[in-house]
Amino acid sequence: MQSKPIDLVLFGAGGDLARRKLLPALMHLEFDELLPEKLRILALSREETNVENFMAGQKATLQAYLGEQRWSKALWEIFCQRVHYVRVEFTEVDQYEVLHQELDSASTSVFYFATPPSLFQGICENLSAARCLSQNSRVVLEKPIGRNFDNCKEVNQTVGEFFDEERIYRIDHYLGKETVQNLLALRFANRFINAQWDNTCIDHVQITVAETVGIDGRFSYYDQVGQLRDMLQNHLMQLLCLVAMEPPNTMTAADIRDEKVKVVRALRVIDETSVADHVVRGQYTSGWYQAEELTGYLELEDADNPQSDTETFVAVKAFIDNWRWAGVPFYVRTGKRMGEKVTEIVITYKTLAHNIFASHENAPNRLVIRLQPNEGIEMHMLSKQHGIEAGTALTPQTLDLNFLSASGIDRIPDAYERLFLDVFRADQSLFVGREEVEQSWLWCDRLISAWEHNRLKVKPYAAGTKGPAQSDLLIGRDGRSWHE
Amino acid sequence: MQSKPIDLVLFGAGGDLARRKLLPALMHLEFDELLPEKLRILALSREETNVENFMAGQKATLQAYLGEQRWSKALWEIFCQRVHYVRVEFTEVDQYEVLHQELDSASTSVFYFATPPSLFQGICENLSAARCLSQNSRVVLEKPIGRNFDNCKEVNQTVGEFFDEERIYRIDHYLGKETVQNLLALRFANRFINAQWDNTCIDHVQITVAETVGIDGRFSYYDQVGQLRDMLQNHLMQLLCLVAMEPPNTMTAADIRDEKVKVVRALRVIDETSVADHVVRGQYTSGWYQAEELTGYLELEDADNPQSDTETFVAVKAFIDNWRWAGVPFYVRTGKRMGEKVTEIVITYKTLAHNIFASHENAPNRLVIRLQPNEGIEMHMLSKQHGIEAGTALTPQTLDLNFLSASGIDRIPDAYERLFLDVFRADQSLFVGREEVEQSWLWCDRLISAWEHNRLKVKPYAAGTKGPAQSDLLIGRDGRSWHE
Repeated sequence: MQSKPIDLVLFGAGGDLARRKLLPALMHLEFDELLPEKLRILALSREETNVENFMAGQKATLQAYLGEQRWSKALWEIFCQRVHYVRVEFTEVDQYEVLHQELDSASTSVFYFATPPSLFQGICENLSAARCLSQNSRVVLEKPIGRNFDNCKEVNQTVGEFFDEERIYRIDHYLGKETVQNLLALRFANRFINAQWDNTCIDHVQITVAETVGIDGRFSYYDQVGQLRDMLQNHLMQLLCLVAMEPPNTMTAADIRDEKVKVVRALRVIDETSVADHVVRGQYTSGWYQAEELTGYLELEDADNPQSDTETFVAVKAFIDNWRWAGVPFYVRTGKRMGEKVTEIVITYKTLAHNIFASHENAPNRLVIRLQPNEGIEMHMLSKQHGIEAGTALTPQTLDLNFLSASGIDRIPDAYERLFLDVFRADQSLFVGREEVEQSWLWCDRLISAWEHNRLKVKPYAAGTKGPAQSDLLIGRDGRSWHE
Repeated sequence: MQSKPIDLVLFGAGGDLARRKLLPALMHLEFDELLPEKLRILALSREETNVENFMAGQKATLQAYLGEQRWSKALWEIFCQRVHYVRVEFTEVDQYEVLHQELDSASTSVFYFATPPSLFQGICENLSAARCLSQNSRVVLEKPIGRNFDNCKEVNQTVGEFFDEERIYRIDHYLGKETVQNLLALRFANRFINAQWDNTCIDHVQITVAETVGIDGRFSYYDQVGQLRDMLQNHLMQLLCLVAMEPPNTMTAADIRDEKVKVVRALRVIDETSVADHVVRGQYTSGWYQAEELTGYLELEDADNPQSDTETFVAVKAFIDNWRWAGVPFYVRTGKRMGEKVTEIVITYKTLAHNIFASHENAPNRLVIRLQPNEGIEMHMLSKQHGIEAGTALTPQTLDLNFLSASGIDRIPDAYERLFLDVFRADQSLFVGREEVEQSWLWCDRLISAWEHNRLKVKPYAAGTKGPAQSDLLIGRDGRSWHE
């Protein structure tokens, strides 16, 4: 990629995210020869070390993530040449002078904040004080953007003082997944799909983000947050927006964001009168995942709040009050310590009013967009049962709409690879806009305030299961069931 | 299959159809243990022979058709036990006495007329005279049913004097194909498909039946008939009906036939004023099929009409004047000596009004129902071009809706197997009703009379090609093109 020189300044280069996601993504891009030719990576951390030692510490992980097919000594050496190490204590303004000297004034600086959000403001101020910012600088923010509506506005306000909105890249890595982008292609490039994307054709939508991980070692942080803020406010909300938004007039960031914000604004507020029927909160107790015994949330070693009512699971029945979706429930759920690691969107079409086949099968068509495991898209249909003796009997069939497998590709790039590329080429369409994130917090805050007001307690569920029984009831009451 | 005893009486058992289709189908059913336990096969022919010799003459062909996987000596012996040979000169009434004696009065007789249609009347009369018919007798008729509307009515009238309509099974073997039945399942069991089956969603329909065979050795017969009567009046018309018919209220023969007849009645008559724009007739000249040199129609050894204007190719742009299909052209074409043997139905959806993707791809969705080669159903869609560097570029993808391959079955049963089973279990839904065949002739007669009136001459096309250039023009004039 021939382009202007770029300095990628990685705050938190020694952290977990950098090691597991950011550096591997960059190195994959190196392998694919997709990095801007004149890209330098400035790894920033508080550690007293040098670039050789820093990279030596990353090598084993990177080698493992790259895999035998892609790793080579030559590639490693090329990649290392891009990396520079800068020791900075992020809270110390005078330490930014080194960074200032290191930055190339002819380059576009991209500041990547892979740090706790509480540091965002200080870093911005220090960057500014040390004259590290220019009109062209970009900033990449990792979630969470704020803890609630007010705080989110504050963060946006602060960062906004130093960067124009067109230079702020709020990461939601779900948006970088190929399958999510394929959902947009499916919706907006195929009349066949596009024409049936509304309340006359679709019965309901399910969005599930089930994690198997627990809160081990993060209790004190997580207990202040809970699953709604940790996962639903960002990831599930983004997926919901992509499913529900009106077709944007263009694929530019501005148009896409406009449509997404409209969805969030149209989300029906869940208040004191409706919260009990529309929300289920859960908290995991001890249980089993395969052969492993799992500790309950309140029994975690670092659990210092034995009365905690923080939810590790939340299921919400949401409605979008607009012309397209009136009357179509969106059932969304997410939890920690579930029985399976699954992220999927399931679109269930209405059933045919009349069944003329002998068979009692009258399963509705379902479009399943699976982000993990095994990214892919499937259509569940009915077909004639095979064989001449079957008469008109029907049988359910799953059609693989997995365009990736269809194109014979074996590797699905990580979301961060795509997102890095987009930051480098200044394309914001897969990043979250200010309005979206703020409106999402507003809706979530009201929901939280409704359950606090009504004292909607968490229901226990055994770790390694699919959440509290009340979650099945939430959807079952409507004559529907979670897609398993 | 446990059921009443059946005597299948095969007129023309020594003929080509019996050898290549009927006997192999019966033997496959034997292998699959689907034949009625008490089924006897009475092979009728004029030849002076006995059952041992008759079957010995069939053995090599049957063995080849069954294939190594299915053929066995034991199966052959079981099958042979069912077969009885009866020598009958079909035109000699006194020879039917032997048949009468052979028939079991406790059995249901199924008379299968695998003979030229000119014999139907005589056979019926002789069967009746020899007291071979009962209230339960069924009759199976092979195409063609008549040569035109009047003659078709006559045939139906005559056969109808001896058999009630519910006991007449008019074969169109295309209806016995699994893929054709799957089309019905697709249409009527999947809302996803069903809801978009009309002129608001579909741009046009193509039906192609391209044969590679020529007329060699059959000139004197074929020259009186032509491709419209030989193929379009029956096979293409049936496919058109299944694509276009309204959803029947039930899957019973009566309801399906009602809906099919409605389609034929709604076909816009092509008359003197429209025939030139709606019909292309072709006749093949010499050419090449792969390395084989092919003789032109008029140069065939038995060609005794050097001025013949008989079409070996016909393409028609048809309209169905009803609520569902107003404005949607059905382009149908069929020809002999084409470059490829293909039978397929192609449903082209309308394109999206607005293209928001960078790519110039705006290919419409297409549903391709292929009867041969390789029976199957495909959906042509657009998806995101794979790879993070692709941005929002699109790429056409073909989705395999081939339910047969999805179910892991390696053998697709021949249409005749299914149709035999349906005759045995008295299910007429995959057979052609009297009204349909007569109305189809009526429409074809008017078309022929229009082209005769206008002296619409055949256009030459080289054997081994895709028909005359005018055929491309017929569809090209509308800004469309044949699906290749």
